[in-house]
Amino acid sequence: MGRITSLLMIIGFILLGCLRVSEQPLQSDDLGAQPGQIIHHVFFWLNNPDSESDKQQLIEGLNTFSSIDEIKVLVVGSPASTIEREVVDNSFDVSELMIFESVEAQDAYQVHPIHTEFVENYSHLWERVVVYDMVVN
Amino acid sequence: MGRITSLLMIIGFILLGCLRVSEQPLQSDDLGAQPGQIIHHVFFWLNNPDSESDKQQLIEGLNTFSSIDEIKVLVVGSPASTIEREVVDNSFDVSELMIFESVEAQDAYQVHPIHTEFVENYSHLWERVVVYDMVVN
Repeated sequence: MGRITSLLMIIGFILLGCLRVSEQPLQSDDLGAQPGQIIHHVFFWLNNPDSESDKQQLIEGLNTFSSIDEIKVLVVGSPASTIEREVVDNSFDVSELMIFESVEAQDAYQVHPIHTEFVENYSHLWERVVVYDMVVN
Repeated sequence: MGRITSLLMIIGFILLGCLRVSEQPLQSDDLGAQPGQIIHHVFFWLNNPDSESDKQQLIEGLNTFSSIDEIKVLVVGSPASTIEREVVDNSFDVSELMIFESVEAQDAYQVHPIHTEFVENYSHLWERVVVYDMVVN
């Protein structure tokens, strides 16, 4: 077998390795939720829950956070139409989920100018907000 | 430049490409939380919140879910020691976060034998449970 054939085979194996990486199923590591990281989950109840415009304004405001360095992951959403069960609270209107590297990073985000400006400009939209901060085991 | 040198350079570029993939910062796509996916977040309040043994038992139970195909991502945690604020509810004892591909996948998980067995074997541990199902925008 010639040198070039051998090298082509090596390239083939490397390419197969790259494919395997991209085909692996999602693990919690891919979530950016490794032990010690903080999942910050916020639920908003709007003053005018029937106003699609208010809902879109709030979502627009939440998306301004995407330039905050401390936020590793930012996801915005609304209640899912899963089976209704007594324990499921689907009464909220908008929700955001963020992942931070540490407690300190979350605390820094709270006083970040983009966040304080968001509260100033958008808090008139909501009636109630509930936050859960979870540290990943 | 000889053929072998050229091939070695090609291998180098491929390896660099592989490195780039693994060095990319986490995006919300890596969260497995793409539009339409379901984030299922559950908070447990224990009957005996001071019992470390009860807490560990519940966590052990939640980890049995790792073999359920419908669950794309499974994360277990506890309240984080972020700054205390009126809107933050850090009174829960244990929390689990899961990501599902669709509403149907979450509904299927509810009746999965591993899940129903979990409820049967571990529900005596908790006093209260609250669930939020969020669809990603």
